[in-house]
Formats: sequence, C-alpha cells, structure tokens
Amino acid sequence: MTYRTSLGVAVIGAGRMGADHVRRISEVTSGAHVAAVVDVDIDRAKTVAADVEECAAYGDIAEAMASPDIDAVLLASPGVAHEAALLTAFEHDLPVLCEKPLTPDAASALRVLEAEQRLGHRRVQVGFMRRYDHEYIKLKALLDSGELGRPLMLHNRHRNPSCPPDFTSAMLINDSVTHEMDITRWLLGQEITSVTVLRPRPSGNAPEGLADPQFVVFETDGGALVDVEIYVNARYGYQVQAEAVCEHGTARIGDRHDMLVSTGGRWGGTVTPGFVERFEEAYDREVQAWIDATRRGEVTGPSAWDGYAVAAVCEAGIRAQTEGRRVEVELADRPALYI
Amino acid sequence: MTYRTSLGVAVIGAGRMGADHVRRISEVTSGAHVAAVVDVDIDRAKTVAADVEECAAYGDIAEAMASPDIDAVLLASPGVAHEAALLTAFEHDLPVLCEKPLTPDAASALRVLEAEQRLGHRRVQVGFMRRYDHEYIKLKALLDSGELGRPLMLHNRHRNPSCPPDFTSAMLINDSVTHEMDITRWLLGQEITSVTVLRPRPSGNAPEGLADPQFVVFETDGGALVDVEIYVNARYGYQVQAEAVCEHGTARIGDRHDMLVSTGGRWGGTVTPGFVERFEEAYDREVQAWIDATRRGEVTGPSAWDGYAVAAVCEAGIRAQTEGRRVEVELADRPALYI
Amino acid sequence: MTYRTSLGVAVIGAGRMGADHVRRISEVTSGAHVAAVVDVDIDRAKTVAADVEECAAYGDIAEAMASPDIDAVLLASPGVAHEAALLTAFEHDLPVLCEKPLTPDAASALRVLEAEQRLGHRRVQVGFMRRYDHEYIKLKALLDSGELGRPLMLHNRHRNPSCPPDFTSAMLINDSVTHEMDITRWLLGQEITSVTVLRPRPSGNAPEGLADPQFVVFETDGGALVDVEIYVNARYGYQVQAEAVCEHGTARIGDRHDMLVSTGGRWGGTVTPGFVERFEEAYDREVQAWIDATRRGEVTGPSAWDGYAVAAVCEAGIRAQTEGRRVEVELADRPALYI
Amino acid sequence: MTYRTSLGVAVIGAGRMGADHVRRISEVTSGAHVAAVVDVDIDRAKTVAADVEECAAYGDIAEAMASPDIDAVLLASPGVAHEAALLTAFEHDLPVLCEKPLTPDAASALRVLEAEQRLGHRRVQVGFMRRYDHEYIKLKALLDSGELGRPLMLHNRHRNPSCPPDFTSAMLINDSVTHEMDITRWLLGQEITSVTVLRPRPSGNAPEGLADPQFVVFETDGGALVDVEIYVNARYGYQVQAEAVCEHGTARIGDRHDMLVSTGGRWGGTVTPGFVERFEEAYDREVQAWIDATRRGEVTGPSAWDGYAVAAVCEAGIRAQTEGRRVEVELADRPALYI
Repeated sequence: MTYRTSLGVAVIGAGRMGADHVRRISEVTSGAHVAAVVDVDIDRAKTVAADVEECAAYGDIAEAMASPDIDAVLLASPGVAHEAALLTAFEHDLPVLCEKPLTPDAASALRVLEAEQRLGHRRVQVGFMRRYDHEYIKLKALLDSGELGRPLMLHNRHRNPSCPPDFTSAMLINDSVTHEMDITRWLLGQEITSVTVLRPRPSGNAPEGLADPQFVVFETDGGALVDVEIYVNARYGYQVQAEAVCEHGTARIGDRHDMLVSTGGRWGGTVTPGFVERFEEAYDREVQAWIDATRRGEVTGPSAWDGYAVAAVCEAGIRAQTEGRRVEVELADRPALYI
Repeated sequence: MTYRTSLGVAVIGAGRMGADHVRRISEVTSGAHVAAVVDVDIDRAKTVAADVEECAAYGDIAEAMASPDIDAVLLASPGVAHEAALLTAFEHDLPVLCEKPLTPDAASALRVLEAEQRLGHRRVQVGFMRRYDHEYIKLKALLDSGELGRPLMLHNRHRNPSCPPDFTSAMLINDSVTHEMDITRWLLGQEITSVTVLRPRPSGNAPEGLADPQFVVFETDGGALVDVEIYVNARYGYQVQAEAVCEHGTARIGDRHDMLVSTGGRWGGTVTPGFVERFEEAYDREVQAWIDATRRGEVTGPSAWDGYAVAAVCEAGIRAQTEGRRVEVELADRPALYI
Repeated sequence: MTYRTSLGVAVIGAGRMGADHVRRISEVTSGAHVAAVVDVDIDRAKTVAADVEECAAYGDIAEAMASPDIDAVLLASPGVAHEAALLTAFEHDLPVLCEKPLTPDAASALRVLEAEQRLGHRRVQVGFMRRYDHEYIKLKALLDSGELGRPLMLHNRHRNPSCPPDFTSAMLINDSVTHEMDITRWLLGQEITSVTVLRPRPSGNAPEGLADPQFVVFETDGGALVDVEIYVNARYGYQVQAEAVCEHGTARIGDRHDMLVSTGGRWGGTVTPGFVERFEEAYDREVQAWIDATRRGEVTGPSAWDGYAVAAVCEAGIRAQTEGRRVEVELADRPALYI
Repeated sequence: MTYRTSLGVAVIGAGRMGADHVRRISEVTSGAHVAAVVDVDIDRAKTVAADVEECAAYGDIAEAMASPDIDAVLLASPGVAHEAALLTAFEHDLPVLCEKPLTPDAASALRVLEAEQRLGHRRVQVGFMRRYDHEYIKLKALLDSGELGRPLMLHNRHRNPSCPPDFTSAMLINDSVTHEMDITRWLLGQEITSVTVLRPRPSGNAPEGLADPQFVVFETDGGALVDVEIYVNARYGYQVQAEAVCEHGTARIGDRHDMLVSTGGRWGGTVTPGFVERFEEAYDREVQAWIDATRRGEVTGPSAWDGYAVAAVCEAGIRAQTEGRRVEVELADRPALYI
C-alpha cells in the first residue's frame, strides 16, 4: 500500500453529527475523503457536500452505495434509520462506522446481528468513541495487566452542564448511561446482568418532571458491581470520571487538567465545558482508526454485538427505572462471529 | 476562669483505646489531667495509671466516680459495658465522652436516651471523631453555606489496609460504616430512612467467608442518596473520601497529600497507612473540644441521640445485608432534649 | 478551495526527524502529501520515499525545488545546511517549515533574515513546536488576557531522562534551553536582554566533564526575570514545566496527568518518559497549522526573526557559561517585515 | 517523671507574638504553664498576665528570672532586646526558646554564641518554626534517606498577600528570606557560601520604592544551588513551596490542599490566606517540642549557631542587594559546642 490511496466515504445523515464527521474526514484525519453526502433532505446533503471537492450529494442511500466512488460508509442518521441503512450496506458489502445507537432497540439490533452473520464477516463498527479516549485506554491497559488484581467495583460519574429541552427521564438511561454500559463491558470484559435505577429528589436545576440526577447500579457476570451517577443539569461543566476498585489498588481517570492558576484566594483549573472539548480527540482517533483498519481490510473496534448488548441493557434499565426495582438483563447467546 | 484549673478525668477502660486517651490527655491536650484509670482488670488499670502523676487506679466504676477528684469521664470500655457506665455517670451527673458505639443496639441506646432525659440535661458526647476532622469540617461549612445548592448525593469511600482476623461481614456495617452513618447525618443534617447493602464477588484479599467489599446505599428524609464503598482488605493503605454532589457543584475531600515525589518514572505521594495517621488530629481535637466545653459547663458535639440514630441505622443495615433487600430504618421520635 | 487539493511537500533530510515528518504528513495530518524526499545520501532519500505513493527521491535540493510537484518545503536537515537550503527555497519562492535552529549562529541567521527581506514577504516558519502545545497556548492566552496583571517572573523546568553520549555543556544551552528562549519571548512578548548561567556541582548521573544541571537566568526588556533549570540526566522521566508569577496571581503548566493509581502504599501517576510523548501532539498541530496556513497562502508561526533572536541569545548564553558572568544580548534592530 | 509536673515559663514580650505564645502554652500545649509575663511596659504585661491563673507580671527581666517559679524562658521581645535577655538567662542557666532573629546582626549573635560556650552547654533554641512543619519534616526525611541521591538544587517560593506599610526592600531579605536561609541549611545540612539578589521590575501591587518581588540565589558549601522567590504583595494568598531537585528525582512541598470544589466552570481549592493558617501547627509543635525537651533536661531544635549563621547570610544578602552582585558569606569557625 502506498500512502496516497484515499478511501472514498459516504457520510449518511447531514445533520450536526454528520457535518462534523465530514469536516473531520476532510480536515483532520488522513487517508480518506468524503465522496458523498447522503440525506433524505437532498438540499441539506447538497449544502454539506458543497464545501468538499468532488463530493456528490444523494437523497437515497442505495443509490449512493451503488456508486463506484464509495469504499465505506459513515452512518450518522437518526437511530431509527440505522437498520435499513445497515442492511443496504451489507448488500454492497461495505464497511460501516455506525454512530450509536446501533439501532433503537434490542430486537432490531438482533436483526442486524443476524444479517451480518449471513454476510459471514464483520462489517460494522459501532461509534462508542470513549474506547478511543486516552484515559479510558490507559485504564483498560492497567486493568488488563492484572497489576491491581481483579476489578471489584467501578464507580462512574457522568455530568453534563445542561440537557436539551425535550430530554426525558428515560433518555438519561438511553442516551447518556449507554456510554457507561459500553465502557463497563469493555473495561471489565464482562457482560452486565442486572440494572437498578435509584432516584434522589430531583435537582432544582432540572426541568419540571425530569428525574435528574439518577444513580444506576449494574451487576456483571464477573461479579463486579458498577455504579453510575448521571446528572445532566450540573451547570458547572462536563465531567466524566471512572474509578476502578481492584483487589490491590484503585485507579481513577477524569481529573485531567493542564493549567493551575492561583489568584483571588483560590487555586485550580477550568472544568471542561462540554463533551466536544472532552471527547473531540477521541472522535478524531476513532475515525482515524476506522479509516486505517478499513484500508487494511479489517474491522476493529466495537462490534454490532456490542451495540446489541447495550440495547439489551438499556431495555432492562428502562424497566428498572419504571418499576423501581432490580431488573435482570436478557441477552441472546453470543454468536461465533463476535467471539 | 483562669488557665491553670485542670479537669480531673476518669478514663474507663485500660485497653488500647483507653491507654491512648490517657496519653493524649497527659501529653497532648491542655486543661485536663487523668485522675483515675478504671478497668475491671485492676492490674491493667494500675499499669496504665502508673505513668501518670497522682493518678488512682480502680476496678470499680462506681467507686471511681464517687471520688471528689473526678470531674468528667472518658468511656473507652467495650460497647457492651457502656449502658451501665453511662447510667452510673448520670447518677453522679458527670459529663461523659463515650467512645462509639453509644451502646451495641438501638434498644439499649434508647434506654440511655431516656435516662439522660430524666436527668434533664445533656451529659453525653459520643466519640464520632470524624466531625472533628478538618476536611469534614470544611465540607460541612461549604454545604451549610448553601453556595452549591442542595446536596443531591454523597459518595463515600472507606478503605482499610486489612481487618482483624475475627472480622465478620456484619462488622463491616456495625464497626466501619457506622462512621459514614454519623457523618452522613451530620453533613446533610438529615436522618437516614433506608439502607440497602450490595455485595460484589469478594476480594481474594478477604478471608474466606467475609463479604468484603460491600456497597451500601442510604436514602435520607431530605431526599438525598448516599453510597458507601466499604473495603477492609484494600492492602495498599487507608483511604476515607467523601464527595458531595450538589445542585450547582461538587466538593470532594480525602485526597489530601503533602509531598509530591517524582522518581523512577512515577510521580505521586504516599497513601495514609492507617486510621491513626489519618484521624489522629481529629481525636486530639475531639478530646480538646470536649475538655474545653466541659470546663465551660457545656455539652457539645455528637449527642446520645446521634448514638441512638446510628444504632437504629445499623440494625436496618444488618437486616438489609442478611435479607438482600432495601430495609427502612425505624426511628423513635426525637426528644426535645436533642433538638 | 475544495478539500481534496493536496499540498506537495519536499521533505529535506531523511534522518530520524525527516522520516518522522514524512510519516506525520502521510498518516496523521490532512491536506498535504510528501511529493519528494531529499537527502545528500540519495539512498537514504530513496528508502524513506519508497513507502510513499508517487514520491520522488533527490540527492540535490535545487533539483527537487525546481520540480512542479513541490508546493512547499519541510527542512529537517542538520542546522549547518539550513542557510543554503533556505536561500534556494527563496529563489523558488517556496514556503518553508524550518526545523530549529534556523541556522547555527546569529551571523548566518541574519543573512537569512536579509534574504527574506529582499524577497519582500515572509516565507519561513521556524519549528519552535512548543508554541503549538495546548498547555503553553493556555498559559499565553491567560497572560495576554491581563487577568493576572503583568508577568514579573517565569520559572522553567526542563528535565530529560538522559542525553546523547556526545552532549557537551554548551549543548545544554544551544540545544535544550533554546526552547525556553523562544517560549520566554513568545509568552511574554519581550526580548531577552541578558543571560547568566549558574552551575551547581554536577550530578553523578552526568558523564564526566558535563556541567549538568545548569541554572540559567534571563532578564527581558520588559523587566521580567526568567529562570530555567536544565537537567539532561534526570533519569526518572521527561518534565517540562513553566510557572508564570504575575502581579495578581500565578499560573503553572507541566503537571498534566491522566490516570491516578493508588497501590502499594503510594498514589500517583506516570511521568512522561520522553519529549516525543510530551510534545508529539504539538508537532502534529505545528505541521497541520503550517499546512493549513500554506494552503491559505499565509505564513504564520515563529518567524525567521524568532530564529535569529534565539541564536543571538544562545551566543550570549555560551559566553555567560564560559566566562561565569552576566552577559548582555546583542540584537540587531527588528526589520519592519517582522513587526 | 510523672505527667502532672508543669514547667513554669516566663514569656518575655507581651506584644502580638508574646500574647500568642501565652495563649498557646495555656490552651494548646501540654506540660507547661505561663508563670510570668514580662514587658518593659508593665501594664501590657499585666493585661496579658491577667487571663492566666497564678501568673505574675514583671517590667524587669532579671527580676522575673530570679523567681523560683520560673523554669524556662520564651523570648518574644523585639530582636534588639534579645542579646541582653539571653545573657541574663544564661546567668540563671535557664533554657530559652528565642523567637527569630537570635539577634539583629552577626556580631551580636557571635557574642551570644561565646556566652553560651562559656556556660559550657546549650541553652538556646531559636524559633525557626518551619523545621516543625510536617511538610518540611517529610522533605528532610526524604533527602536524608538518600533515596533520591544528592540534592543538586532547591527551588523556593515565598509569597505573602501583603506587607506592613513600613516594609523595606532590605526586610524582604532580613525578615522573609531568613526562613529560607535556615530551611536551606537544615534541609541540605550545608552552609550557605554566597548570596546574589536579582530584582525584576517591581509589581504594581508594591508600595512605591519597594523592590518587590526579589529573586535570591544561594550557593552552598556542598555545591548545591538554591533559589528563593520572595514576593510580599502577591495579594492572592500565602504560599510557601519548596522543590528539591536531586540526582534521581525531585520532591515538592507546599501544594497541600484539603477540599476540591467544582462549580461555575472551575475546580480547585482555597489558597492559605496567611502565615498563621499555614504555620500555626508548626508553632504548636515547636513549643510542645521545646517543652518536652526542656522537661527531659535537653536542648534540641535550631541552635544559637543556626541563629548566628542566618545573621551572617543576611548581612551578605543585604550587601548583595545593595551592590547588585554576588557576595560571599563570611562565617566564623563552628565551635565544638554546636557540632
């Protein structure tokens, strides 16, 4: 392989996330270019495509995927549209980086799994970008080394300065805690077997009727206990922290800082204002890793199985939240393709 | 008052804790002296008393308390002996600093409350020494200031390097988590209304049969959610941490350090080796505060009510641990004396 | 401009630094490709060029620059070869990213300045990559904001785990402290007016005869005092720190960490092992910024004047080191092109 | 020895420092009581003495020292009065805790040394209280352990929020940097051989005419290089920091914090507001250590030699400041009594 070969990518979905990936592939990462932008709103696709040299705009996914200029697909449309797009990509045997969620529920995720199995090889990488964050990578390396013994507990903090106006109590589980579901499974190499959702009296910062914060507890098939504080109206900034408590020691990430200032009677630093600032580099690395693997003809990163497993934990989480009790996760057997 | 007046203290219990208090009153704090050491094992009392000038040794509590040299009592005998000693002190209307627990169970604690009420004024300070720790004091001041809004959650970590050989799963609740029960009530100014105890797969560091670590969740009558990680065989050191999550910000204590060393590829500091190093100054301040208040004719600090309330939470905790479910705390009405 | 346009870069010098830039432009950054590798050792040029698609190899700089495929030059040959290469690039009016030093001494640097002035516009960016480090950028933004008042002092630490076997006492100034010379000028927006070099008894880690560590003091034309600890055999890791002391506060960078581990009686993190790990992202951003500016037809970043000024401070530093006294920096007037 | 024996202390000087020591001995430390307060202003002595049980007030030092109630002397009068008071104490062979400075200049300090030598045994402890600070103690223990190799450099920061209105440029050396003179000698176990004083452009916070901040450099007879930043109008708080750079590692103190708060976009803690908050515990431990040693019939802690050596370094420092050059310290031979 020589360096100049460039991967032609079709970005599906020209919303905020899609446009951001177009910018990333065009200006930040190396080895790929955006060859097509696809959106059911063809005008929106054209607007985004207009900034990119020799980039086509499509209103129809199948048409775009049929183009010989397309080597790979980045799927950034709403979750409800993922299943159809993935099945179409499978027809063209195209590698896909699928933004989370894989699909909105476990049943549809299972259908994607089955389709990919029929294809006979993995084609999907799911966009759980935290796995590409330097800090989580360091933590996983430490856990995998066994230096601290077996992980017993994992404490997670997930704080957003504010949430969109239409955010619901269920979305704290489905949109926010999904990250911790994936990262728990990945860090520990274990499946989540039960979910409990506890709810303190809501913060005065939260809109009327929103159960915010929540405190979620997972049990895993390896006997670990995991807790997640999710608070989406913390006002003061964006914080994602994880502390692994192992037999012989603990490790904590999420306290990174770069400049300490002392003035006016206080010392300290700034809190990351939002998830973009916190995880922008992880997004960059995720896409670069996907490009590099795709150019090598490989599929790495979070699989469709990971997308399905998180969907199953979400369903248990919503039931746990609604019914106010511990709910066990029902998980299909893991197909050979994903082992 | 002039400075030379010295409070004559009878230290009851000549074990490790009692002897340490004798040393503290004699060598560290100001304004009091040990006038008597009392132990059912009179020889042990004599040994400890021998190092102290003009200090009597007694085998009988009532006899010691009858002495005109005794102005106050420091009760450091085993918990089962506390009720009788406290009732005797009440007969002589003597102020008592009573090491925790007040008594071993809620029923006996309630009898002490009733006796103190019959006396008509508070005489007992319970030895919840964390309330005298600089860090907890700072955290309480911040919470009380309202600067961060209402506390929503309180995350606690409590790690010991090792536990005594005869430690039981119940003692993680009764001996260790009692500190967090008191500190939760004190920091938040709220009563604990329920307890849940979760148990990950035990650490390989724990003796066979000991459920270590455990993860305990409290709900409070103010709507706060409190979690406590208790791990008594953490090997690497002693760590007590608390993080308050409030509406507009968070505050964390327990990361104090004094010297940062960089060498051999690593930077950092030492972990406090044990609870003595971590809380020695709190013990010193607790006893000094008790001496100072007693000399002023006042009773301050944790009351018998606090001792009773923690006993009630302990009983719920043990049931929660045994039955594997959330258990509500049954608490008597708070008598006027303790409001 | 559309995104696919790619800048053709000639990388001059196929040694370690040149090869690393070839990799960076090919695999990491966006918007440019390596069109030629140039080295007096043509075989070395060919070896490095072989991994890159459609990339020529040259033994002669003038020949490479004459190629229509070359839009810009990255100069990574030894410092002694820079003057000739820069003058050749000026003949072809090519933009150059010139690795530090601009040239090995102030007289030759001045000749480059004069040649660039004859050209009538800036073409050279000097590779002082610390200006692209996130932490230094934050510190400069804070100083420029005026929030802390005027900078009074700047304390710098510069520690390497080890130095090459042929490192000399002069090279601590010429190779290492040059970074602090540039960063001082950039952070403060002031010129350095004098240099003093102090030498404690050498470390036992240093090779026989090497004055390591050294402690260098600058005065600036803005009245600031700057000290630099340089220690190139610190063994334990690579540390670069800066603390600005301003009228109303202080700011410190260089303590960044990402994971805190507590085990075996100690807590802490890892020290960055070397300058690559510490500044790799700064190199990436430097080259990306140069590519982006070049594609916009601009020259940004450290100028030839900055390269000259540092060369002049180096000469004063070497005299200060040799003569054991404070030496004033002799600086030409700043030409209009660099204001 | 039994615990009740109480040392009768005469506190000389009823100003702010003296009154604070009276409070300390009466309310904080154990094993001593204030038996006399002495001040040339007898009314001031009476006022301070009035709060203390059975405490005499004197206007004359000799008279006080002649009293059989006096076992030891705490000298807290102005430095100019120290020599006479010390000589009188020697006549009565009384142990003295002498607040710094020992005397205002090297010549008078030398006379005290000679008088103490005639006495034939040490009687004086000089009040360099930083030696009793937990952090400095930890740092010294680490340096003494040899774990990091030989100390090469010591970087010190000394920042006060503000200075008294009549503070002079010389007092930054004589009053403030004296602490670093002592602590350098103590930490390294080396004598200071030269002083250089550098002066950046004064801060706008400093009163007109005051050279603030200053940057002081010591060389030692062990080949170490020591720098001290002294800034007495830093506004934002009180900070004392020290970083030892040794052959195989570095150690830093002075960053201690106890509560981390995240709110309003920032995380961090409070800066110690003043030297009382920073060093109050060191004062307490200093006096307790002096009481304990005195009761054992010993003299420990900083000696008259230490007081003299610091006076000699101060004289060199003032000359260095005035003459703008490196000045060598002239030190008498160390008498056998102080080895």
